[in-house]
Amino acid sequence: MATFSSHQTQTHFISKLPANKPRTKPMFTRVRMSYQESAPSVAVVGVTGAVGQEFLSVLSDRDFPYRSIKMLASKRSAGKQLSFQDKAYTVEELTEDSFDGVDIALFSAGGSISKKFGPIAVEKGSIVVDNSSAFRMVENVPLVIPEVNPEAMSGIKVGMGKGALIANPNCSTIICLMAATPLHRRAKVTRMVVSTYQAASGAGAAAMEELELQTREVLEGKPPTCKIFSQQYAFNLFSHNAPVLENGYNEEEMKMVKETRKIWNDKDVRVTATCIRVPVMRAHAESVNLQFEKPLDEDTARDILKNAPGVVVIDDRASNHFPTPLEVSNKDDVAVGRIRRDVSQDGNHGLDIFVCGDQVRKGAALNAVQIAEMLL
Amino acid sequence: MATFSSHQTQTHFISKLPANKPRTKPMFTRVRMSYQESAPSVAVVGVTGAVGQEFLSVLSDRDFPYRSIKMLASKRSAGKQLSFQDKAYTVEELTEDSFDGVDIALFSAGGSISKKFGPIAVEKGSIVVDNSSAFRMVENVPLVIPEVNPEAMSGIKVGMGKGALIANPNCSTIICLMAATPLHRRAKVTRMVVSTYQAASGAGAAAMEELELQTREVLEGKPPTCKIFSQQYAFNLFSHNAPVLENGYNEEEMKMVKETRKIWNDKDVRVTATCIRVPVMRAHAESVNLQFEKPLDEDTARDILKNAPGVVVIDDRASNHFPTPLEVSNKDDVAVGRIRRDVSQDGNHGLDIFVCGDQVRKGAALNAVQIAEMLL
Repeated sequence: MATFSSHQTQTHFISKLPANKPRTKPMFTRVRMSYQESAPSVAVVGVTGAVGQEFLSVLSDRDFPYRSIKMLASKRSAGKQLSFQDKAYTVEELTEDSFDGVDIALFSAGGSISKKFGPIAVEKGSIVVDNSSAFRMVENVPLVIPEVNPEAMSGIKVGMGKGALIANPNCSTIICLMAATPLHRRAKVTRMVVSTYQAASGAGAAAMEELELQTREVLEGKPPTCKIFSQQYAFNLFSHNAPVLENGYNEEEMKMVKETRKIWNDKDVRVTATCIRVPVMRAHAESVNLQFEKPLDEDTARDILKNAPGVVVIDDRASNHFPTPLEVSNKDDVAVGRIRRDVSQDGNHGLDIFVCGDQVRKGAALNAVQIAEMLL
Repeated sequence: MATFSSHQTQTHFISKLPANKPRTKPMFTRVRMSYQESAPSVAVVGVTGAVGQEFLSVLSDRDFPYRSIKMLASKRSAGKQLSFQDKAYTVEELTEDSFDGVDIALFSAGGSISKKFGPIAVEKGSIVVDNSSAFRMVENVPLVIPEVNPEAMSGIKVGMGKGALIANPNCSTIICLMAATPLHRRAKVTRMVVSTYQAASGAGAAAMEELELQTREVLEGKPPTCKIFSQQYAFNLFSHNAPVLENGYNEEEMKMVKETRKIWNDKDVRVTATCIRVPVMRAHAESVNLQFEKPLDEDTARDILKNAPGVVVIDDRASNHFPTPLEVSNKDDVAVGRIRRDVSQDGNHGLDIFVCGDQVRKGAALNAVQIAEMLL
């Protein structure tokens, strides 16, 4: 399995999910053989990035079946050597010819690369699972969280004789909706107020490295190196670095507003979000305030979440044990806790919850690979 | 001026407020001479703690007039030497006799010390400004933010011939209401959803030291020392460590709910809060979603906040410059930004804002000293 230097340095940041907690409840029977003659040909675009490397991890962990796998990246990374499932690969430069014979292309190389090469791959017959925001809000492009709206991509399969585009939602949206959707199905969410606590990984591997470097510098009394972010990140937090739009929301926040409507196929759901970057490595946390059309008490909500696929409930009030970013790091499940009746709303029409999920994994690579599994 | 070792190590964490931003707009004319024969006799209870030390800083910075000052702490700290305004002081053990002749006693030594010694001091004729939660919700004890509800302590003055208790609100409440109150006055807040990003300092000097120690350990690949908190704090965040109550809220959150009602003298205002500890040293941040009875557009709100005492607006969308904990550290003002119309509410009946304030200063010591200034 390919590994990634900045991930290795994090081993000591990471604690385990307690052994007595339920682990991932897979929705799909996994195909156990990964290399298969009849299996799809796969390409990973942006393979040297944080999410690209996690694609490889997840494909391997889940024994994703493949006939061949292409490692694609920019010219700058071409020629690098990677090891995947005990086989050596050379990173190839992404070009217009890269997608000949590719069944499934997993993209995570930024919006402009997706905009340019996504349609080319589709033209060549590939099914593109795109992790960028390029196509998320395009009509007829399914925006999919497999546990939430698998129906949105029904009919799209490897072997259907033509290419297609499927968009992976933004990490914050995925993590929020993994917890909110099971409750929405029961009681219909009418309004949602979200405040995020977002990790460095959302800005890529270099941002994680900068956080670590800055922290060392600050502890040594040196001025912090600010290359990826414009200000000190160590022992600090700041409004998400996405551009601020005319309405005062930043792009990250408006993604949550718009993507939720599309994924839930509910143009009336009201969402507001405040997205903040905190000095945490690779998992996001979100404080989510929910308003419901129908009453939903907290015990029922907890039971619903305990039975939700891909969700683990950590909600131990007596020992003050609730989800943390560290505890979900490198984990598939999204953790939910602090489940309680909102005292600012009447009756049982409101809940507050606190959600944590690995940004690189369920927030990006795992979700995309789950989409790819549904194509088989 | 007395300083404190863990504060000194933070110098490099701290950046300045930009020079072109308005600084504190003082509500009160400051008395420039600090030592005065006719001035009150002051006692600082818990003088060796983080807030106790900040009391001294703030008293000195604001040239608080005093005839004498007593440095009080537990038996363990008695005998320690402190320097204050170029004079040496010996820390005295807090006893029942400590308050003889004391006009103003600033308490920050925890709830149980306040409960025991607060009434004793009042009995001796001292006016107690208490930073603990012991008396905040007691009827007839004023709970005061000087910029917000000075009228709550009207009539209480040094020289009135009897003691009194005045409570300093919780840090998160102070910082939130510094920004929310000017808007509430104009448009009446009916509901407020708050998510906090709280610094180590709220748990005291030892917690700040633990965050620094843990961060060093984690960067060296060692397991983190967990004495103050039960779990890793470095590169992590967690639900506030206050005990969780039967309704699922922790005590910190319910302080915000209840104290807001008392300070605004409005039992109908609806508040919910989710309080989270983040790996930041000494300033809190809060994401605040507001619902108003009357319409209030974002430009009017920004103007109101620009003119609010003790508030600075940092809201530069073009350069993505908004309040951060680092920027308000060691500052008096509470900074507000991300002021925008809430897209999840109709018309101009909702706003989202992001607030940062120094937890040790305006969240505790400064607010208490401002209360003491009103006693003169």
